[in-house]
Amino acid sequence: MAYLNENYLKLKAGYLFPEIGRRVSAFTAAQPEAARRLIRCGIGDVTEALPAASRAAMHAAVDELGDRTTFKGYGPEQGYDFLRTAIAENMFRARGLEVADDEIFVSDGSKCDTGNILDIFGTGNRLGIPDPVYPVYVDTNVMAGNTGEADAAGAYAGIGYLPCHEGNGFMPDVPAAGEPPLDLIYLCSPNNPTGAAVTREKLQAWVEYALRHGSVILFDAAYEAFITDPAIPRSIYEIPGGRECAIEFRSFSKHGGFTGVRCAFTVVPKSLMAGTRDGRKLPLHPLWSRRMTTKFNGASYIVQRGAAALFSEAGKAEVATLIDHYLGNAAVLREAARDAGLTSFGGTDAPYIWVKTPGGLGSWEFFDVMLNKLNVVVTPGAGFGAAGEGFFRISAFNSRANAIEVGRRLREEL
Amino acid sequence: MAYLNENYLKLKAGYLFPEIGRRVSAFTAAQPEAARRLIRCGIGDVTEALPAASRAAMHAAVDELGDRTTFKGYGPEQGYDFLRTAIAENMFRARGLEVADDEIFVSDGSKCDTGNILDIFGTGNRLGIPDPVYPVYVDTNVMAGNTGEADAAGAYAGIGYLPCHEGNGFMPDVPAAGEPPLDLIYLCSPNNPTGAAVTREKLQAWVEYALRHGSVILFDAAYEAFITDPAIPRSIYEIPGGRECAIEFRSFSKHGGFTGVRCAFTVVPKSLMAGTRDGRKLPLHPLWSRRMTTKFNGASYIVQRGAAALFSEAGKAEVATLIDHYLGNAAVLREAARDAGLTSFGGTDAPYIWVKTPGGLGSWEFFDVMLNKLNVVVTPGAGFGAAGEGFFRISAFNSRANAIEVGRRLREEL
Repeated sequence: MAYLNENYLKLKAGYLFPEIGRRVSAFTAAQPEAARRLIRCGIGDVTEALPAASRAAMHAAVDELGDRTTFKGYGPEQGYDFLRTAIAENMFRARGLEVADDEIFVSDGSKCDTGNILDIFGTGNRLGIPDPVYPVYVDTNVMAGNTGEADAAGAYAGIGYLPCHEGNGFMPDVPAAGEPPLDLIYLCSPNNPTGAAVTREKLQAWVEYALRHGSVILFDAAYEAFITDPAIPRSIYEIPGGRECAIEFRSFSKHGGFTGVRCAFTVVPKSLMAGTRDGRKLPLHPLWSRRMTTKFNGASYIVQRGAAALFSEAGKAEVATLIDHYLGNAAVLREAARDAGLTSFGGTDAPYIWVKTPGGLGSWEFFDVMLNKLNVVVTPGAGFGAAGEGFFRISAFNSRANAIEVGRRLREEL
Repeated sequence: MAYLNENYLKLKAGYLFPEIGRRVSAFTAAQPEAARRLIRCGIGDVTEALPAASRAAMHAAVDELGDRTTFKGYGPEQGYDFLRTAIAENMFRARGLEVADDEIFVSDGSKCDTGNILDIFGTGNRLGIPDPVYPVYVDTNVMAGNTGEADAAGAYAGIGYLPCHEGNGFMPDVPAAGEPPLDLIYLCSPNNPTGAAVTREKLQAWVEYALRHGSVILFDAAYEAFITDPAIPRSIYEIPGGRECAIEFRSFSKHGGFTGVRCAFTVVPKSLMAGTRDGRKLPLHPLWSRRMTTKFNGASYIVQRGAAALFSEAGKAEVATLIDHYLGNAAVLREAARDAGLTSFGGTDAPYIWVKTPGGLGSWEFFDVMLNKLNVVVTPGAGFGAAGEGFFRISAFNSRANAIEVGRRLREEL
């Protein structure tokens, strides 16, 4: 008899977005008038038009496929050289960071990459995962059998949750000396959902920790384009030793509005090693290369042309305009939250504002207030992990008019 | 210390295509004159222009993304309804087969799907894998830890190799009664590399075997579009009981010339169950759904529009023309091989011709004859598994002129 992967049975049902959907539906049915002015600031998805430079490049690529002399079939699984070079040159080498073209692995999305990366790691690694954070890190480890069962609060045995709170600037500190060392550490900066970005000092402490213990840091920089503070590192490779301890994930989803187009990449430095049980240290680069060439067949040629065009002069200007738009929304929302007497974080180096629920209300209680009174959908912080309780996330991915209107309601209607 | 997945260290180096490349380079350097007339019939990649219907749909989709009112961000991870419905309706229900829209999971490629499917199966399943066959099935099982080490001949412990030879029509027979039952069985029809397609009787025997033992069949029908014989099943769901024992993989790569565009799908019937170690039987559909929603973010919207257009009247006609073109090449090559006194198989329901090497030459020996004497690159059968020794594969993916010229050389120059 064929046996299924029983680790999947440990997974808690995807609760957050279905429950939001259920409450929004109930509200719409009960208050059809109010529902007409509903504004969604819940989901982390871009809303504005795709850059013209990318569209032009994709039109041209589609036309190329229409002529057998310029037709492209299977491309290199790791990505076309034109894109790998453009990424390495523009995002790393132009900033003085040593990243070779063939250390870039182009994919169809960071969600895939951050999940698939576990393929190349063994079992029994001690996991460090921030709380609250993007749920994919936890779920993929459960699916891979790297955890035990969940407790009543939803915390899985075998995961070292790294709490993110006001006291540590919503970015985890390295474990105290004497605690058992973590082997595989997820860091997400700028962070989804808290909007916090890791400081150079803290990232340096993590790199030093990883080098000391032979740990690997999985650095998710999907929101890197939103960093405005020049003191905040955009890449973990800005930290000395980063190339010896970290894999970095980047995406064009938020950078170029590619959530529906699908393109991302992973950086695996050739100097990054991991251990075998008999005490050898081997490079991870050949393993990821083998994983991608065996279980992936390259991102769409059309899409890769669209991504490469983001690095043209016109493309860069359009990306900057997009980012300014969303950060402008974030500023509107942050100021409105402040005027409404709410304590908020993030929103300066990230498209998310992390707001403390007033009066000690729970995440879901305040979600209901926002829905029923302001007719605005937000995301309850508890949905991103236990340490998110008492907070909610407002997304700046919206039109400016909607951001201004949400701001007005926060000021006048709360 | 972070530990790596040591199963990767069991993998034999990807030998086939690098070795072909090495020999072709050596030939080109040694015989620059002859190299000018080199024709590649090695790789299984399409060569002709993408259907105009798909290109028009993709142009329109790119334009949609350029306007915020029609912009598409994240789509459903399992695929857009417009494509799932078009697939289920055109490829299954129109042929009387019961497949629901939500049993279709759209992806970016069959290579990914046939590799990723192992995520939802447990460890310890007894594997049945044809030999010779598409190498991804074996390699992904090695990477997942489902095998032991390889022996000197490259066969991995723990894999039940199912030999495909002239005696069984290059399609494996069900194991004899009394042999330990296989739990997870790969079938590829039409087969890559042999070009054989499974008969209804043999597929029925496999379905009955799987139902008897609670096995799951992973049915790879990536080359389904090339089937011309009406007696050959195009889907395993044509066989009674298929919905209770099989997952089917299909792709637009060869169907619509999408190898560079990237779109495929997997069918997981809701009636398909697998076991738990404590004796329960549970459906696999929710597991694959959870896998795809957690570790994948949907295929590109642009690409999905392009794939859906293959089901328009114009698209269907263009697909038929493409398939006719490649099958026409296959006929040219088959006839030439016959005229040259070679024994060949396949090429009527598949784009591959499987040719016996003459005079008892080894696969690689005859590869060298084809390269040095005819200046034609083929693929040595041994590269697809031990049972491929003594054969070579000629691919019909080429221009008609090239196919005719290769035919002429086979007749006149061998």
